[in-house]
Amino acid sequence: MPMFIDTSPPGQCIFCRLVAGEIPSARVAEDDLALAFMDLGQVNPGHVLVASKRHAATLFDLTPEEAGAVMRMAQRVALAARTAFDPDGLMLLQANGAVAGQTVGHFHIHVVPRHDGDGIDYTWPRKEPGPAALEAYAQRLRAAL
Amino acid sequence: MPMFIDTSPPGQCIFCRLVAGEIPSARVAEDDLALAFMDLGQVNPGHVLVASKRHAATLFDLTPEEAGAVMRMAQRVALAARTAFDPDGLMLLQANGAVAGQTVGHFHIHVVPRHDGDGIDYTWPRKEPGPAALEAYAQRLRAAL
Repeated sequence: MPMFIDTSPPGQCIFCRLVAGEIPSARVAEDDLALAFMDLGQVNPGHVLVASKRHAATLFDLTPEEAGAVMRMAQRVALAARTAFDPDGLMLLQANGAVAGQTVGHFHIHVVPRHDGDGIDYTWPRKEPGPAALEAYAQRLRAAL
Repeated sequence: MPMFIDTSPPGQCIFCRLVAGEIPSARVAEDDLALAFMDLGQVNPGHVLVASKRHAATLFDLTPEEAGAVMRMAQRVALAARTAFDPDGLMLLQANGAVAGQTVGHFHIHVVPRHDGDGIDYTWPRKEPGPAALEAYAQRLRAAL
């Protein structure tokens, strides 16, 4: 599975340099494991990235402790965004691999306030394969846990 | 902020009934706080929902412990999906509010294996407002933490 986009080694990728303070960013919050900072792109005002401090290319590379920490921070940021920007809704998006839209090969979650008519949209082709297929898929996943 | 879609009271919404076993589902994993089961829609094979067991309408309504638990389970499921379905990538999507695409008013994360040409796409209008705006947004968020 080709998972990497930015193939810089740990410590030299753009987010490692940002965590280290070698690249400026508009920081929102941090703890031992996670850092929250403004996304340069701002699909809506208040769009934040929550990254692992340690270099982990994708979700697959986090420790369970890091997975918990980044989500707790994403929730804190979401609550602050609700207060600060009064959105109609909010989404989290976390992409792994170029096919999923990942452009920096260092784990991060997008926290995105949403507003009516904000121009964000996604194509979501539901297949509805039915109960037998669902159970077969679930079996494959359970066998791989 | 209008956050609810399914306004069933706690214990009577479709995911509460699913957690309780009153509605059948293809289960993948569970622990004290979280349940993973196959999404009926299956935008790709292996598409799983990770829900809080307790009724929490949105990300805003989780406890920090629940936020950590659902993400750790999402990661476990993602790792299993990588083994079982060999995707080109994987995305997490978590929607709060109808504007964000939430259709069941009980917290859940979509875990979606991704493949080249799978027809999933999103429109992501980057605004790039520049450093002064980023810092102003960050200040608003920090003040609301």
